[in-house]
Amino acid sequence: MSGDVPTVVPVAVPGGRDYTVVVEAGSIDRVGSHAREAAPDVRRWAIVGDDTVSGLYADRVRASFEAAGLPASVFAFPAGEANKNRAVWAELTDRLLADGLGRDGGVVGLGGGVSGDLAGFVAATYMRGVPVLQVPTSVVAMVDSAVGGKTGVDAPAGKNLVGAFHPPVRVVVDPTTIATLPVAERIQGLAEAVKHGAIVDAEYARAIERDAEKLRVGALEPTTRMVVRSIQVKAEVVSADERETGLRETLNFGHTIGHALEAASGFAVPHGSAVALGMVLESRLGEVLGWTTEGTARELAGILERVGLPVAPAHPPDVERILEFVRADKKVRGGRPRIVFLRTLGRVDSHDGGWARAVEEEALRALLIAA
Amino acid sequence: MSGDVPTVVPVAVPGGRDYTVVVEAGSIDRVGSHAREAAPDVRRWAIVGDDTVSGLYADRVRASFEAAGLPASVFAFPAGEANKNRAVWAELTDRLLADGLGRDGGVVGLGGGVSGDLAGFVAATYMRGVPVLQVPTSVVAMVDSAVGGKTGVDAPAGKNLVGAFHPPVRVVVDPTTIATLPVAERIQGLAEAVKHGAIVDAEYARAIERDAEKLRVGALEPTTRMVVRSIQVKAEVVSADERETGLRETLNFGHTIGHALEAASGFAVPHGSAVALGMVLESRLGEVLGWTTEGTARELAGILERVGLPVAPAHPPDVERILEFVRADKKVRGGRPRIVFLRTLGRVDSHDGGWARAVEEEALRALLIAA
Repeated sequence: MSGDVPTVVPVAVPGGRDYTVVVEAGSIDRVGSHAREAAPDVRRWAIVGDDTVSGLYADRVRASFEAAGLPASVFAFPAGEANKNRAVWAELTDRLLADGLGRDGGVVGLGGGVSGDLAGFVAATYMRGVPVLQVPTSVVAMVDSAVGGKTGVDAPAGKNLVGAFHPPVRVVVDPTTIATLPVAERIQGLAEAVKHGAIVDAEYARAIERDAEKLRVGALEPTTRMVVRSIQVKAEVVSADERETGLRETLNFGHTIGHALEAASGFAVPHGSAVALGMVLESRLGEVLGWTTEGTARELAGILERVGLPVAPAHPPDVERILEFVRADKKVRGGRPRIVFLRTLGRVDSHDGGWARAVEEEALRALLIAA
Repeated sequence: MSGDVPTVVPVAVPGGRDYTVVVEAGSIDRVGSHAREAAPDVRRWAIVGDDTVSGLYADRVRASFEAAGLPASVFAFPAGEANKNRAVWAELTDRLLADGLGRDGGVVGLGGGVSGDLAGFVAATYMRGVPVLQVPTSVVAMVDSAVGGKTGVDAPAGKNLVGAFHPPVRVVVDPTTIATLPVAERIQGLAEAVKHGAIVDAEYARAIERDAEKLRVGALEPTTRMVVRSIQVKAEVVSADERETGLRETLNFGHTIGHALEAASGFAVPHGSAVALGMVLESRLGEVLGWTTEGTARELAGILERVGLPVAPAHPPDVERILEFVRADKKVRGGRPRIVFLRTLGRVDSHDGGWARAVEEEALRALLIAA
């Protein structure tokens, strides 16, 4: 599977809003023609991306729109998760309005997860919704956030608490852009890829372990293979369940604890590291509670370490503060936190018609104190 | 059709999110049981309404939830269209988050159009969407804004420019609440009812003219009859087209000019008055351009006058400022404003596969200068 042949992954969405994810080396220079094909009624596009990514790619993306005969303007915002908030969303919206983008406009989300979530939420709420085309340029955005229709921003009370489902009209993935990322950011993105292996495909998780060094430097062939496999996993899960009432819940593996760790650190712990720690801790909890096969946490930790991700907290965690964020989590129902547990590497079992299990806060507290 | 027998109007929404509008005198005291029936998975409700309406009805609505065995809290915000903005939306969201409302929560929109739009947008964007149940208490909210799934807030650039489609799980209409409205507000709401007659049912428009005095005081029987007929019209149009790509466009009759007049006045001209003026001016323009039967504007003006609505601007309009807002309107496509024209009272013809026609700004300018 080389970067030269486009791979097209279909994603099903209820209500006839199916779309495709196209993975192709060099596609960053063909975004305009993808946009014309995927959303022929859109007359004008707003390219929304953080200033770092925009500096690298916005001109090329805009040129691709020019080549396709479509007007497009660039709207950059300051990079960083701290800017994924309602104030920046409102400001971007007002800039698009001031620029005269009408209901026949569309939005391109260019960049990492923050750009995609923010651009997607601008599109979801712009005049009650205009099309969004996602152009993820980071590993985590490609393998995770650009597929599935989740958009949104953070609130002081926690991450992603404000948002909307707004499926893209297309996702255009150019794996060559991964090579321009700082190595640390590439490693962060691998956490979600390992998660995909962990929940449905042990062989894929082990392939990531084998390719770890090449993936860390962004070598095109293994990177493309990984991106395609992760998108396939995510697309299958999301297609089975666009509304997170069922199978999609399995994608939250590692995230109940992970999100809380991240938030409790004031976002000093980056997302990938937090999810890596979350996966290991949730697996350890699953083993303690008898729901996860013994040794799963250790096997998972081995893979994550090879990739370059942390498997134990750097400092003793502030347990009560973490529990506060667990309580504020979207996944809490009826007061008890819900966690997705592996049965074993590559497999999650359903439980009571769902995929997560409610746990007593006490069990979680004991685990965190021991971490 | 007395207020004692509930009238149930079904509304179709793509993606299996159909809902019903229940019109029944006294239903304000049965909102809780409606909520339980329409959204059985919701464990806790947030009642969102402006402080005026909350003062009148929030206790009764909360009591109905208690009677249904469902926890519910009241979140009031300061009344007035000026508060239908992103700041109040963000504050309400943060208050719900601080109160611990989870993804298994739901929102009740209690009050007029502002409450419904704002509560609906809070629900649409709360943890990527929780159910909303609408309890409209004003004429305009009952006959217009509560049905159809439009939610949103105003931006400095114009009304309703930020928002989302988020169909309610049910709309509970108690026509007795209309009697508690100030007379001026009741009259404002009648503009949308006249519009429903104007676009699809001339006989209904004439019935409003005949019942005008009783409707102005909120007499239960004619008010209920009107509310039911308007909801039927709106439900039929919306069911035929949830996404405003087709038939729904006819509901914009009077609104291209109306919205611009309202915005250009800094919202000093209330919505109903603006729509009344908009309908008359758009009909006059239609007559000038040969698309509307001669005499239609005059007939419509006669009905609106009987109801108590203005049919000519109180002051010479600031034409260029109005045109600026027309240009910013969501209905502008490809630079030319689009307007829905009556063929005659009770009928809109389709044109080129749509229901609105693009007009030259010059024609609109000439009309406004003469107004």
